[in-house]
Amino acid sequence: MIKGMEFSGIASGIKPSGLDLGLVFFREETNVLALYTSNKVKAAHILYDKKLDRKPVRAILVNSGNANACTGKEGVNDIKNIGEHLSKLLKINPDEILFASTGVIGVRIPVDTIKGALSASVKNLKETHVENFAKAIMTTDTSQKLIKETFKGEKTYTVIGAAKGSGMINPNFATMLAFVFTDYPVSPDTIRRTFRQAAQESFEKITVDGECSTNDTVMLFTKKGNEDLSGLEGFKKTLSSVMKGLAMMVVRDGEGATKIAHIIVEGAKKKDIAEKIARRISISPLTKTAFFGNDPNWGRIICAAGDAGVPVDQSKVDITLQGEQIVKNGLEVPFDEKKLKKLMDTKEISVIVNLNNGKASFDIYTTDLTYDYIKINASYRS
Amino acid sequence: MIKGMEFSGIASGIKPSGLDLGLVFFREETNVLALYTSNKVKAAHILYDKKLDRKPVRAILVNSGNANACTGKEGVNDIKNIGEHLSKLLKINPDEILFASTGVIGVRIPVDTIKGALSASVKNLKETHVENFAKAIMTTDTSQKLIKETFKGEKTYTVIGAAKGSGMINPNFATMLAFVFTDYPVSPDTIRRTFRQAAQESFEKITVDGECSTNDTVMLFTKKGNEDLSGLEGFKKTLSSVMKGLAMMVVRDGEGATKIAHIIVEGAKKKDIAEKIARRISISPLTKTAFFGNDPNWGRIICAAGDAGVPVDQSKVDITLQGEQIVKNGLEVPFDEKKLKKLMDTKEISVIVNLNNGKASFDIYTTDLTYDYIKINASYRS
Repeated sequence: MIKGMEFSGIASGIKPSGLDLGLVFFREETNVLALYTSNKVKAAHILYDKKLDRKPVRAILVNSGNANACTGKEGVNDIKNIGEHLSKLLKINPDEILFASTGVIGVRIPVDTIKGALSASVKNLKETHVENFAKAIMTTDTSQKLIKETFKGEKTYTVIGAAKGSGMINPNFATMLAFVFTDYPVSPDTIRRTFRQAAQESFEKITVDGECSTNDTVMLFTKKGNEDLSGLEGFKKTLSSVMKGLAMMVVRDGEGATKIAHIIVEGAKKKDIAEKIARRISISPLTKTAFFGNDPNWGRIICAAGDAGVPVDQSKVDITLQGEQIVKNGLEVPFDEKKLKKLMDTKEISVIVNLNNGKASFDIYTTDLTYDYIKINASYRS
Repeated sequence: MIKGMEFSGIASGIKPSGLDLGLVFFREETNVLALYTSNKVKAAHILYDKKLDRKPVRAILVNSGNANACTGKEGVNDIKNIGEHLSKLLKINPDEILFASTGVIGVRIPVDTIKGALSASVKNLKETHVENFAKAIMTTDTSQKLIKETFKGEKTYTVIGAAKGSGMINPNFATMLAFVFTDYPVSPDTIRRTFRQAAQESFEKITVDGECSTNDTVMLFTKKGNEDLSGLEGFKKTLSSVMKGLAMMVVRDGEGATKIAHIIVEGAKKKDIAEKIARRISISPLTKTAFFGNDPNWGRIICAAGDAGVPVDQSKVDITLQGEQIVKNGLEVPFDEKKLKKLMDTKEISVIVNLNNGKASFDIYTTDLTYDYIKINASYRS
């Protein structure tokens, strides 16, 4: 619970069933930092929110079930329309309200449905209702993604993070919806770089399907007021921990995923090379189906590495899978296939690719590619 | 049938069952042009063949069931060893023999098995046995890929093409094994650019899973001798037709594919931009699963377009699906979803994305992403 931050989550009727409208109300002006998708096609809420950049806010309304993306000027006007109505109910200015959406692309947001539900949404507001909020922003997620941690400064502060996955996930700038709230008073300027870095180390280090969405948004809400610098180190650590935790929840709940794989590329000449190879392996459908099949098929891993568009000296490459070295200098080290299959039959796979060509490294988490990913996406309109 | 070009395909025992060893013997010296994978990790046959570049050849031995990739110097030595044995049987020089392999990566090629089968392979050689050859190079292909066309010069010439797909297919340089044979006498220098261009317009315009393999090879074998320039235009057209035909057979038989999709990006400022967007859409798992589900989910298409790393003005984008315009200026044109789903329930999907920003265009063929792709790749060791 964070004093002065009230949450709600209700079923407004955007989706046929279930919670779909989340609201956060800040009883006092609150600072916000935001990162948005790098996709050139951007959702209406991003176009709208960006105009309010760097101003303190009093509320954010988040809906699932409709992305409000590719809806043109009308989509932005729809937000304005909803915002004006909400501002009256909350007795704040319309430009103190941010928005975020997730769901199907290209369909106008149901303005009347949402407006009709807003008074219920406002009535539902409570400091303790963050779980409702976390549930209301879910789409194909199978579980809510909510983390709460505390740290000490002049007093004990709280950081709460809520996020939704679980398809169209690829680490290119921010990559889904995630909201982090804290009662820690810190100015955006003090924390901007830390926030960016925490996103790089969390949401930008996961992928489910290599698809960077039109709606990806990560926001950090911090208390306005005199900074408590004695808590700064603690806050940075906690912020990073909460964002990493949320990112791991998102990748673990990736569409259809039965397991996650941690891809570590080491021994690169430059970090950029390690990153390109790690990212290429992480989106390789052949590698991801091999993870699903518990197949220690290192040929697919080295093939993807070679296809990353950066130099790879195959005669130097070592690969370690589940702690067992199976490739040395680009050649197979004889291994017990049955044993390795068994080691892979678990929730978490570890792959270390050592290029033996330098000291730089990069790591990323991905999922396996399964029947259920096909099932979800050949039928669900997301 | 091409006079002087003899084919064979036998079951040598590399695979548990089925034909796996293809041989072509040229009774006279034959010119060859070759294109190889852009993957930085290259199979042994590519490292070996490249050294013989631009020399006339007398034979090529192709095996399936083992890629002979990531097998180090030993893999290249294995080829040498096999080549020496084969050269004696064929009474030619070892450096007149090319090799190609496809199959599982990282496993040494079974030299003794292959050497033991070579005399049967040579005995099986016949001008009429090209179908055996085409069958022997298959892996997860469900059907052989063989095309024969003729054209006229001073006499009637024949072009025969054989290829194998069907996973690890992505158009980045040449992208699978394909061999084209002709009795048309033309020097490599005359035809080099045409060949490169034909590959760009065929094999580099298909993708199955975005995976560029370690073994991709396209070879063109032409008769040595006085050029017949009266046939040149006919040959160029026929070559292009055969290569396009083979490419279409490869994509149609993509792993698990139930249909193909022709992605056309028009109205781009530069071809490079159209190409990046078309390629990005063609590997998008969400778009490909929507094709499988007959879902006119244009949001996924425009989302992938926006994620191609090139500028896209979403307010200008038009999308036409199966001949029906469903997006104008980035907004949905109301359409009959039931009708469109029905139109999509066919073997070939057409998607036109018009950026309305210029005159350049690019097109590419891809497959849908299905349960069977997962089935094949979670169990088959390729």
